[in-house]
Formats: sequence, structure tokens, C-alpha cells
Amino acid sequence: MKDSVINPPVSRADIGYFSGLGVSVVHNEEQLEAKFNVDALGKYHGSAQVALFPTSTLQVSDILTYCNQRGISVVTQGGNSGVCGGAIAHQGEVILSLRDMNKVRDMDVISGVLVAESGCVLEDLDNYAQKQGYTVPVDLGARKKCMIGGNVSTNAGGLRYLRYGSMHGSVLGLEVVLPDGRILDSLFTLKKDASGYDIKQLFIGAEGTLGVVTAVAISLAPKPRASQLAVLGLQDFSKIQRAFVLARQNLGEIVSAFEFWEKRCNELVVEYESYDSPLSNSHEFYVLIETRGSCLRHDMEKLDTFLECLRGEELIDESRVVRDAEDMDKTWLFRSQMAHAHSKSGHMHVYDFSLPSKHQYELLVAVKGHLEQAGLYGKPGMPVSDVTIFGHVGDDNIHLQVIAQEFGGVVEEAMEPWVYEWVGSHGGSVAAEHGLGSHKGQFLKYSKSPVLIETMKSIKQLLDPKNIMNPGKHVSRA
Amino acid sequence: MKDSVINPPVSRADIGYFSGLGVSVVHNEEQLEAKFNVDALGKYHGSAQVALFPTSTLQVSDILTYCNQRGISVVTQGGNSGVCGGAIAHQGEVILSLRDMNKVRDMDVISGVLVAESGCVLEDLDNYAQKQGYTVPVDLGARKKCMIGGNVSTNAGGLRYLRYGSMHGSVLGLEVVLPDGRILDSLFTLKKDASGYDIKQLFIGAEGTLGVVTAVAISLAPKPRASQLAVLGLQDFSKIQRAFVLARQNLGEIVSAFEFWEKRCNELVVEYESYDSPLSNSHEFYVLIETRGSCLRHDMEKLDTFLECLRGEELIDESRVVRDAEDMDKTWLFRSQMAHAHSKSGHMHVYDFSLPSKHQYELLVAVKGHLEQAGLYGKPGMPVSDVTIFGHVGDDNIHLQVIAQEFGGVVEEAMEPWVYEWVGSHGGSVAAEHGLGSHKGQFLKYSKSPVLIETMKSIKQLLDPKNIMNPGKHVSRA
Repeated sequence: MKDSVINPPVSRADIGYFSGLGVSVVHNEEQLEAKFNVDALGKYHGSAQVALFPTSTLQVSDILTYCNQRGISVVTQGGNSGVCGGAIAHQGEVILSLRDMNKVRDMDVISGVLVAESGCVLEDLDNYAQKQGYTVPVDLGARKKCMIGGNVSTNAGGLRYLRYGSMHGSVLGLEVVLPDGRILDSLFTLKKDASGYDIKQLFIGAEGTLGVVTAVAISLAPKPRASQLAVLGLQDFSKIQRAFVLARQNLGEIVSAFEFWEKRCNELVVEYESYDSPLSNSHEFYVLIETRGSCLRHDMEKLDTFLECLRGEELIDESRVVRDAEDMDKTWLFRSQMAHAHSKSGHMHVYDFSLPSKHQYELLVAVKGHLEQAGLYGKPGMPVSDVTIFGHVGDDNIHLQVIAQEFGGVVEEAMEPWVYEWVGSHGGSVAAEHGLGSHKGQFLKYSKSPVLIETMKSIKQLLDPKNIMNPGKHVSRA
Repeated sequence: MKDSVINPPVSRADIGYFSGLGVSVVHNEEQLEAKFNVDALGKYHGSAQVALFPTSTLQVSDILTYCNQRGISVVTQGGNSGVCGGAIAHQGEVILSLRDMNKVRDMDVISGVLVAESGCVLEDLDNYAQKQGYTVPVDLGARKKCMIGGNVSTNAGGLRYLRYGSMHGSVLGLEVVLPDGRILDSLFTLKKDASGYDIKQLFIGAEGTLGVVTAVAISLAPKPRASQLAVLGLQDFSKIQRAFVLARQNLGEIVSAFEFWEKRCNELVVEYESYDSPLSNSHEFYVLIETRGSCLRHDMEKLDTFLECLRGEELIDESRVVRDAEDMDKTWLFRSQMAHAHSKSGHMHVYDFSLPSKHQYELLVAVKGHLEQAGLYGKPGMPVSDVTIFGHVGDDNIHLQVIAQEFGGVVEEAMEPWVYEWVGSHGGSVAAEHGLGSHKGQFLKYSKSPVLIETMKSIKQLLDPKNIMNPGKHVSRA
């Protein structure tokens, strides 16, 4: 399998062929650079000479048939909101943007199953679903930009995973164009299916390395009739864990999100986004809890009982309940802009781990210690200005930010592979919800066994023998 | 790929080798016939000469290494409660029983993740989980017999799918021994993971054709603090569908099961199991709704409001709310014994389909008409005594029973492939939760596209090139 590819320059004949299919083609360097050859954080830069904008599955099939025959590599792009370089054409690949495949194909209002093309923007899709009495079971900070095909391809987790679970459960069917142009129609819309291998699962989280996801059938959740938030201020990390156990007991089926962040994260959002802190006082840790239910009166009572419980066990120093719609939006925005605030404060090395909750705070202490020892952090003027964590409690998903004066360099050298090794040896995964992208495949060995990695590679070889789909990324780097 | 196999007779040397591993071996014909060479309904008969009972993953690995080298085919067996012949050694394969691998390996009481060996009986596992404040998110009628490894391998759906969703979402990790004996350690216990292809998904529903699942990591649901049932009597099928929509709106997050059955099913349970009908009067259709929540007072109020709604729209003729624990057990037992009652009344041809709800009743009418036209049903003494449906509303999963004087014969000839074609052409799946087993692979083409079936077969070829795992079944028959 070719792991590193010098892609043949796209010829006039190639462009002529693509145009002849009726596909929009962009090959203006400036346009490419501004929108398609750079990632959301400005960290990864690509060198695609051409971006294609098919409007139908058949066009995607024609494009891949052509590229496969000629060994032209392809990078699929959705909203280009990824932070791991997975959608960037590092080696001059052709960019296949799904932006113009953005139709809702079907919506069953009885069963709550939506069939949408990959280019539908997540927020638009959720607005559409809400009008029919449902909500899309995945939500994340990039909702205004990311697209459902990309959500599937990166196995997006997000803010309400705790309630609605994984894409592997909620995606019922996929339409995929295989690398050789064949259309794999697996766009099943019924909930139970035990007829053969569940092939579509392979494309969930494949980051465009096995084919192009062109449409998604997804089981929606009923739109909640009632929602409320509580923001808590706490003194130490162990109290967050205890609060989570009490939330599951007292809020039970209505808890839909349980987020935490630490003091410095709060300060960065206040400083760089000019938002008000959601609490009056400053705390070591903050927790944001959301409930979604079908009866506000019941949910209010449950939340009050839960907060009583927290106070009874002296777990919290401050709490605020938010029930006003505008205030809820503002509070969520504060949480959603956290990564953005970090990236404004410097060059953000972002890490996205699954880690048993008992090791999460330990990770922060270990990273700070490691960087201090390396002489990179702890004193003014040093390369690292901040090391922070925030995350999704209950999903065991933690984001670690190391803010530096530049991308890469001594900071990356000190951090990697050290931090991946640390996470792997503490039972974690090197990628929880951001994916492997172009960079992290090499660290997969720290959290996955050799037989598992071999099996992944054999699947890649089976479905993409010419290695034209997103070459040199993901498990190809493992 | 060899689709039909004449298995070499197991030699004394083979038995000597297996015994030498410390594995229990049964090769007494009577014992084999009584327990391992016949399925739950007495429909499928096998011809295994030997059954092996490993107690460790390493033993399973040694057995498969040996069998793979010698081309000895293997059928994996759990509780042997399947109804599609998937666990039966039709061609004299070696039976690999996971019965003695029945330890709980780990339980995290904070995150609610359980790691159990495949031979754990589902009910035992749920009892264990309940003691820790959790419940296993899958439940089915065979709970006293079926084992968690078999539940995973058949992608079991069951009674509370509506609430807890699919195995593809709740199984976090698997340990699998590949056909060549390599151990695929994918026993991940954290909830989010976006690092490479989710290989374990392939084994969920593979019915032992790709390897042996030896252990399962599963995300449990919190044990409900409150539970209640409502049984409804209704006049026609469309009212069930409307009641379901109202249940999702009014009961929202607490509805955990929504089952229906028709009049004749009710009569059969009363007649053959000697249970009292759950309602005083006789009705065309019955619905059983379960709620599971964290506050009984709230849940009672929600259920009352919902029943008011049903009465307001004149959807129901009778209703009974059950809150007494013993009465709840009895009511559930009535539902659980439905298949058993059918099988006592004659030879049960059981069909398990996913079908859009709007076509479910239509199916019953079509089948009755078809069998009448064939002169097989409708008058006393004809080969078919009963045709019934019951199922899981909201999962689009319907069970069709055709009760005949014998298995196979003219009834099967009249029904197949006709009924599979009918289901496929109405947007359904030929297998919803029972699996393909030894018989249904040939009908897969009615609900899955050729490219999808080709891809499934290529996966089988990739992982089991010598075709030793459950040969001639599942997608190999497609």
C-alpha cells in the first residue's frame, strides 16, 4: 500500500472530464487557499489544485471511477471544520466537496427517521428536524459549519452523547460510493436489522479512507418539550465525579449533557470572547448540566432535588439554574466557544482523548509537570502559556489544550509521542471524537493492539486496493 | 469459498489434542443429540460428533489454530436458544460451546461498564448488574438460556430496544478469536472512540462466521427506580400506531417498551400456557407499554395523562395499569411466552421481519390470502392452523407465525421465497433480530443490494479464507 503519494498533477484533460460530468470545478489558487486548502485552526495546509462539487451520487460515482482508473487520489471534504487535518489535501489530492449535495431526501414523521445528503449542515438539519417534532441526536460546537456526512465519517461524539449515544447506534443506513465508483446502497431506514454483516459501520469513523459517504439515514430523538440548565462551581475534581453519580441517580432519564471545565478555561472565554462568566464567583471547576424531558414541572422538581443533594453533601460552592431560553443559549455559547477562545489566545495544540475519569485530572498534572521539566512551561515568556482541560463527563472524553507560541516545534516534540503513550498506558484512546486525521495514525499503537491494527489495514486494502481515498492518513499511518 | 462442506470425521488424535489442552470434550452421541445437535424449536438437527468446552480465551485460540490448520469446521454455540439454525452443526462441524466461559471480568460502578465472558447467561448478568444499580440494555424472552456472546453474535434486539437502542451502540468492546487463532483484543471500555475503523462492529450480527466472540464490554443503563405497565385493548391496527405517537409525546423519555399482539396470539397463550388474559374482555389487538423512570410519582402522572389522551381520542376499549411487582412479572411473562405457546400449538414457522409499520398489518392479510389461495389455510383440517403477528412497535419489528402440521413441506414451499420477496418489496429486512442462521442467507437478496452482499462476502473471505467458521450459513448462502 502506498503510504506517501506524489499525486500526478491534475491535467487539463482531467478538468475537462470533470466539467463534462456537469460538476462544478474550482481550480483558482486563491479560492482554494482561502477555503479548501487550510483547516479550521489554520494548522494544516493543503496543496489541492482542484476542488469538485458534485450534486448527485452518480456524479460522485463517475468521479471516483475516473480517479481510481488513473490513480488520482481524492480527499473528501464536508464543512472542513475538522481539527486533525483529515480533510486537507496534503499531497495535492483532488478535493471532493459534498457541499452541494445538501438535500433532505426523506423524513418519516411517525418513526422519526431522516434521510439526508452528506452536505447538509448539522444546524440546518436540526432546525428542520425540530419543525417535525424531533432533534438530531448529535450536536457539537461546529454545528453551523460541519456537515452530517463529516459527522458520520469522523464518528462525531459531541455534547449530548451521554443522552443519545453513539453514531454507531443512531445511524441506520448509509449510501456510500466505493473507491472504484460502485455505489454501496445501504440506506436502510428501519431500526432493527440482523441480516448479514453491518457493513455501514466501517464507514462511521473511516474519515473518507474507504469511500465517500453521500447520504445518511439517521434515527432522530423526540424534540424535548422542556429543557433547563444548571451551572455549578466546585472546588475539586473528585466532586465532579460524585456529582455525576448523583445526577444519574436523581435526574435519571432526563440528563442530556454533563460538561466540565476548569478555572483557566473559564477565564479564557471571558478574556477572548468577552462573555460574562456563567457564575458570579471564580471556581476551580465548573459543571454545566442540561436536562431534556417531556414535562417541565417534573424536570424542575428533579433538578431541585438533585441540587439539594449536592448541597447536602457539600459538593458545590455556587449554583445557578437557567430556564430562560435566551439565557440558556448564552450559557451554551459560553461552553461552545471554549476551543475558539483557546485558539485566539495562542497556537492551540488540541488533544482529544478517552480516558477513565479517575485519570483525567492526573493527566493535566502530568502534562504540566512534563512541560515544566522540559523547561517549556511555568514561567513567563516560556513557549507554553497555558495547559487546560475540559470535557464531557460520563463519556470519559477529555480535551487537553496546550497553548504555545507556534504550531509544532519544541512543544510538539516534548508532547508527542509522550502524551499518547501516557494515555494508552492509562487505558485511554488516542482519539475520542476528533478522529485520527493526518497526524494521529502513528500513535494508534499506544491504544490499539497489533492484531486490531493489522485487521484495520487489511480492510483498507480490501476496499481501496489502489489507495486513492485520503492516502497516507488515518490507519495508513499506523 | 467452499459453501458446502463434508467435514472430515473428528479423529481420536483430534480428540486427544483437544483433551490435552485441558478442554472438556463431549463425544457421547446421546448427550450431543439431547443438548447440542438440536435447536430450541426442534426444527434444526445437527450431526456434530464432538463438542468442546473451553474455559479460557487461550484455549479457544489453540482450538481454532488447530482447526484452521486442518480445515476442521467449527460452529460456535452459546445458550443454543436461536431459532434460525445458526448454532447447529448441520455438516458435522465441531461444536465450540462457550458455556464454561461465564465469568464477569470487570464492572465499573461509576461508568456502568461491564466486561463479561460470552458464556454468561443474560438473566444472570442482569441480576448481577441490578445489584450494582444498573441493568443490561438488552432483554429478550430467552433470557434464562441465551448468553451474552450469542446476543452480540446475533445482534439481538428484544423488548427494550426502543429505549436502549442497538447492540451496535451499547457494545463498547469485544474480545474475539479470529479463525486462524489470533486474538483480536478490542475489549475497549470507554464510551467515545474515534480511532480507526470500528472493527468490533463486524462481529455484532456475524453469527459466528468471522471468529469467536469470547468477551464483551457493554455499557449498562441505570437501573430504573420506578417501573409500571399498561395493557391496552384496541379495535384496529391504525389505532396502535396513533397510540405510539402519543406515547412518545406524553411518556417521552420514560417509555421503555411498546409491544403489540393480536387476538389469536392472546388466545394461544391462554390456551397453551394456561395464563389469564391480561385484560377482562377480548380485543382485536393488545398493547403492552412499559415505563422506566427515576420517580414513580412523576411517571404515574405521565401515564395517567397519556391514558386520558388515548380515551379522549377514543383509541382504546379497555386499559389496565399494573404497578404491583408480581403482577408486572406475570404480565411480562404472558408476553414472553407468546412464541412458546405458538410452538406448543403446532409446528411453528417463525418469520422475523423489519417492516415499515404502515405495511405490517397488510403483511398478515397478504399471507393469509396467499395461503388460502394455495389451499393451505382457511378451512379445518388444512395444513396451516394459524397465521399470527406480534411485535415491537417503534422498532418496526414484526414476528409472523405460520402454524402447520409439520416443518418444511408444502407450507414452506408456499411461503418461501414468496414472503421474503413481499417484505423486500415493501422496504423491509428479511431478518430483524433473529439473524440469518442456516436458512435465510439465500433470501438476503430481497432486501440488500448486490454491491452490499458482495462486500459482505469479501469480508468473510478476508477474515476466514479457509471458511472454517460456521460454513455454508449466513451470507455464504446469499
